[in-house]
Amino acid sequence: MRELDENSITAAVIERFSNAPNPRVKEVCTSLVKHLHDFVRDVRPTEEEWGYAIDFLTRTGKICDDVRQEFVLLSDTLGVSTLVDSINHPVHGDVTQSTVLGPFWTAKMPDCKMGDDIHGNMKGEPAYIYGTLRSEDGTPLANAQMDVWHSDDDGFYDVQQMEKLGGPGGRGRFHTDKDGRFWFWSIKPTCYPVPTDGPVGEMLRGQGRHPMRPAHLHFIFSAPGHRRLVTHIFDPTDKYIDSDAVFGVKESLIREYKQHPPGTAPDGKAMKEPFVTITYDFVMAKEDKKAA
Amino acid sequence: MRELDENSITAAVIERFSNAPNPRVKEVCTSLVKHLHDFVRDVRPTEEEWGYAIDFLTRTGKICDDVRQEFVLLSDTLGVSTLVDSINHPVHGDVTQSTVLGPFWTAKMPDCKMGDDIHGNMKGEPAYIYGTLRSEDGTPLANAQMDVWHSDDDGFYDVQQMEKLGGPGGRGRFHTDKDGRFWFWSIKPTCYPVPTDGPVGEMLRGQGRHPMRPAHLHFIFSAPGHRRLVTHIFDPTDKYIDSDAVFGVKESLIREYKQHPPGTAPDGKAMKEPFVTITYDFVMAKEDKKAA
Repeated sequence: MRELDENSITAAVIERFSNAPNPRVKEVCTSLVKHLHDFVRDVRPTEEEWGYAIDFLTRTGKICDDVRQEFVLLSDTLGVSTLVDSINHPVHGDVTQSTVLGPFWTAKMPDCKMGDDIHGNMKGEPAYIYGTLRSEDGTPLANAQMDVWHSDDDGFYDVQQMEKLGGPGGRGRFHTDKDGRFWFWSIKPTCYPVPTDGPVGEMLRGQGRHPMRPAHLHFIFSAPGHRRLVTHIFDPTDKYIDSDAVFGVKESLIREYKQHPPGTAPDGKAMKEPFVTITYDFVMAKEDKKAA
Repeated sequence: MRELDENSITAAVIERFSNAPNPRVKEVCTSLVKHLHDFVRDVRPTEEEWGYAIDFLTRTGKICDDVRQEFVLLSDTLGVSTLVDSINHPVHGDVTQSTVLGPFWTAKMPDCKMGDDIHGNMKGEPAYIYGTLRSEDGTPLANAQMDVWHSDDDGFYDVQQMEKLGGPGGRGRFHTDKDGRFWFWSIKPTCYPVPTDGPVGEMLRGQGRHPMRPAHLHFIFSAPGHRRLVTHIFDPTDKYIDSDAVFGVKESLIREYKQHPPGTAPDGKAMKEPFVTITYDFVMAKEDKKAA
């Protein structure tokens, strides 16, 4: 080990893990060192470039706080989050595909009942959102928890503008009815940029990329005996639908909004202004019995 | 791009770099995404493991401050620093090999003159350290700047115990004499652990590794027309000489201390207690004319 060069260093580092108490830690660290060293040998960084990398990672950690997670954003914008999601939720029958969680879900969600209008003081075109939830075997899933959140017409989530809104908007926790149905009002979301005032923004500019995400509605469904479903519904008319900054779009999650003139909405509500409707039938995977 | 799966995601991310203004940024980011995705596909992390990785990196950034650089320590303990050093300073003739900088060099060094005793209030066996500096063509390098720093008998650097020491110790900036020679007094350093109270310590414990570095003296030489030389001299009798936590040891940088009874030291000083001497002749590489 006294004559480590750019090739022998890798085996020397891995050899140090021979007494790792947990075999999974050993496996992950061994693979990490192999791939990380391969990357370094491939790009052959100067000492200045290595110093920039150290500083970039340090700043990425420093900017994180309770409402901002820059390392998640880095993972999202490098496609790692979508890759981890694909590995953990492979396409399976007609189960609804999952996608990235994103940084704007909050543990505390306003409790809502079906039919509520959750837009709060957000601006945007009224939208009636409805659909069903069932298990992969076709059974409707009653009383399942459904979290919903989305951005407004200006491209902001409520948590980014709480002072202006005076409370939550475009956010709620529902429970499906006895037939696995859901329905509520909000507004139609628009596209928005991921935060660009930190290291990830610096990286996106360096890579010559835009920071935009196409408009989408977020959903998380939880039901006993089923895997949690974290997903979006995307708007096909959005100009960024084919260039999502975080690689979350899947064809099966794209759904058109229907435009309606003033008149009676599907729930009987009399609308004096134009509105849109969108519907989606979600399917949850059963929990893996081996894993449970 | 709408049907990204665990394989197609990689090309989709790389495609986004097609308009990167700087070709080097494009090259590095492309390689990073390839190797990072290969690592993720290899270990197939659960969502909990991915979450742990995000949290680990965040904490690694958070703990960094003006005197602590945990990402450098992470790079050191994963062998990346030695790899980058090997790439940038390949073995070349009889040029002295370089090694890692480590976290305890300081920009502000006490100005010293040859023959000074720099141990300050540090404890340890008196050591007389001397040698020469020449260019790879054999020319002695006069008036070259030489920074020296090292730990004490308890395994601490001065910057870790400034209150106790009341000032610098085991640290100084010298200039070689007209014949490229240097000589000074200090104490013999001992082995010490890298900091283990942060994420890197957590990683080392998970990997079943000790955090120790074998005893060494740090040197940085700077001379016009030559590449800066950052190196250590290691003590072959140290129990960690074959398991340096940061992979910095090279055979050519190992040198024995000579033990001496009380008596006259090489510089004529009368020593009432036993002391050690150590000598090393350093050779600097000429600056690459193409790169300069």
